[in-house]
Amino acid sequence: MEKKNKSPLQKAKETLYELGKDLVRQVNKIENPTITLPVRGLTNINYNKTKGTLELGDKMASRSFFNLGHAKKFMQTLEVAAVSKELLNIDKHVSLRDVFYQVKRTIPNTNINIVDDQVETDSAIEDMELITGCSREQLHINANRSGSVAGKVIIVDRGDTIDWSKMGSGGWSIPSNVEEIEFKKVNTKYIIYMEKMAVWDRLHQDRYWDKHNCIIMSSQGQTTRGIRRLLQRLSNEHNIPIYVLCDWDIYGTYIYSVIKYGSIALAHASERLTIPNVKYIGITGDDVINYDLKKHLIKLGDKDLARMKQVSDYEWFKDNKAWLRQFRLMKELKGKVEIQSLSARGITFISDTYLPLKIKKQDFLE
Amino acid sequence: MEKKNKSPLQKAKETLYELGKDLVRQVNKIENPTITLPVRGLTNINYNKTKGTLELGDKMASRSFFNLGHAKKFMQTLEVAAVSKELLNIDKHVSLRDVFYQVKRTIPNTNINIVDDQVETDSAIEDMELITGCSREQLHINANRSGSVAGKVIIVDRGDTIDWSKMGSGGWSIPSNVEEIEFKKVNTKYIIYMEKMAVWDRLHQDRYWDKHNCIIMSSQGQTTRGIRRLLQRLSNEHNIPIYVLCDWDIYGTYIYSVIKYGSIALAHASERLTIPNVKYIGITGDDVINYDLKKHLIKLGDKDLARMKQVSDYEWFKDNKAWLRQFRLMKELKGKVEIQSLSARGITFISDTYLPLKIKKQDFLE
Repeated sequence: MEKKNKSPLQKAKETLYELGKDLVRQVNKIENPTITLPVRGLTNINYNKTKGTLELGDKMASRSFFNLGHAKKFMQTLEVAAVSKELLNIDKHVSLRDVFYQVKRTIPNTNINIVDDQVETDSAIEDMELITGCSREQLHINANRSGSVAGKVIIVDRGDTIDWSKMGSGGWSIPSNVEEIEFKKVNTKYIIYMEKMAVWDRLHQDRYWDKHNCIIMSSQGQTTRGIRRLLQRLSNEHNIPIYVLCDWDIYGTYIYSVIKYGSIALAHASERLTIPNVKYIGITGDDVINYDLKKHLIKLGDKDLARMKQVSDYEWFKDNKAWLRQFRLMKELKGKVEIQSLSARGITFISDTYLPLKIKKQDFLE
Repeated sequence: MEKKNKSPLQKAKETLYELGKDLVRQVNKIENPTITLPVRGLTNINYNKTKGTLELGDKMASRSFFNLGHAKKFMQTLEVAAVSKELLNIDKHVSLRDVFYQVKRTIPNTNINIVDDQVETDSAIEDMELITGCSREQLHINANRSGSVAGKVIIVDRGDTIDWSKMGSGGWSIPSNVEEIEFKKVNTKYIIYMEKMAVWDRLHQDRYWDKHNCIIMSSQGQTTRGIRRLLQRLSNEHNIPIYVLCDWDIYGTYIYSVIKYGSIALAHASERLTIPNVKYIGITGDDVINYDLKKHLIKLGDKDLARMKQVSDYEWFKDNKAWLRQFRLMKELKGKVEIQSLSARGITFISDTYLPLKIKKQDFLE
């Protein structure tokens, strides 16, 4: 069967249909119904140095119906497959939480629920991504979202033409699923993605994107999949450099790392989410020294140090001298700083001096 | 001095100037510099039954420079007043976190910082609202924000004309400060505000706002001040009924309560934030029974029960029979349910049946 020209939706439907057909075949042959799929987790993660992304290895696991340890998970996987198929058939999108409630019910004449907790359906949905080769978004399942964007870009989304430069003080709210967005006009030199909405508000009020012809994008905390995919599409389809602005702490570093290399939980989705050429613009330990931010250092706790050790040991960090130096600086200064500590230098210091200077000097970490 | 026709900005500037002038006068008279302001907290909160809002009582407290217990707080208040005055002069907005960093520094030749923690500046900013009679937003200080909106409304914000019905799948991102938004066209029968973005995404995909001629608005979790003020402005200026959709648990109840009556911490801002005629559309214990959601009950924990006791005792709940009945139902059923549990009845059940029926029957809690 030629699948190349099929839509992801069509492909997903067929894969789900074939998954069912294969299980029926096994049942008819009086075999133990079994699904085979790759192992997820750090034990099956490879860092592909050439591509610069995390990838899933080739360790496989099977999940069988007649196996006490597998039976429940087998059933959950099939239930989620059934929900996915229905969603694709009726062309509706739901949230991860909705899928949980659609699957959750008690097996008749027992006290056993098919699922008790959302982590079970979430995990089955990630399995479904592996089985179908489609992203969760393509399977019409959305996660929580947050984030705003502004810049000289015009898009079409669900039939609406949206101009990111004319969104008032709020900006356009970034959806969970950005697959169907069409870029009509993209007039931008670079993108600054920041982990804090308050910093975005600062840059937006200063009309940084207008003065410097760029896009500013933010979420609150962890980068959502919607934002990662939107950044990736802008990078791939329009060849726009992306600079990431985070707190100078291990969590900020990891936010950057997930955008660049991918995450352990979603290594199977690296291809659709990672952006290997993304660069880190700050905050760095050097900024702390150069801009006299030492008095704004927040003391490192045991958790910070433990996480720093863990991240330093990851394959994609352990040979990265520039970053290991940053971790050493954090330990030497016994502290971390937030982006907003730059406010101590003046309200618009970040827009007027800090970012333009970094970009002019191309002073990035990678 | 006639202040009625002055802009809030002008008034705030003058009040801050007078605060400074008064302190200078006290110093020149060799008095102990003292600021007097109302006590904040549950001991000075009254529930105004006629207006249906929480109000600050008339207990006053003074804060003096030559008083070991007051000196630091006195200084913090003045530092924040100075930052506020600068913000108004240069007409820039900053975040709560920025104010903290602008105030934070070590007093020369000591080891004492003016502030060590953001709660100190946050509290001084709330004092500044009391002193100036201006909201934090009018003082150009913004908090974290989140939330999306869609509906047949056209606004002008910072010179941009924004059509809430043409925002694609994301919706318009609600800013922290909505004071200067101008409503150009408002064509809507009611507003549904919900505590969960995933539910908003559901209603938006089903184009609920288009079919029923209403506005849908959401944040993630606690309602931000920006959203509360936006809802209030739509209610006051355009006389639009507002229905609040929350999880059936004590936290959902309190989200509704804050929108309707105000909050303890911000009782002084009630006038600018509360919406006494807002109604609660669901989820209710009756929905749990009528729609057979019992299997989706999540067990109540000790925290739920303790908070329920606390809320039941609040003056603005203790005589509300409809709500006390809901609390009894929660205890009888030993559980709480989430809005999304309605998904178990069908993906679009909430849009096709649940909400239209509630509104047709005017089946609300107050």
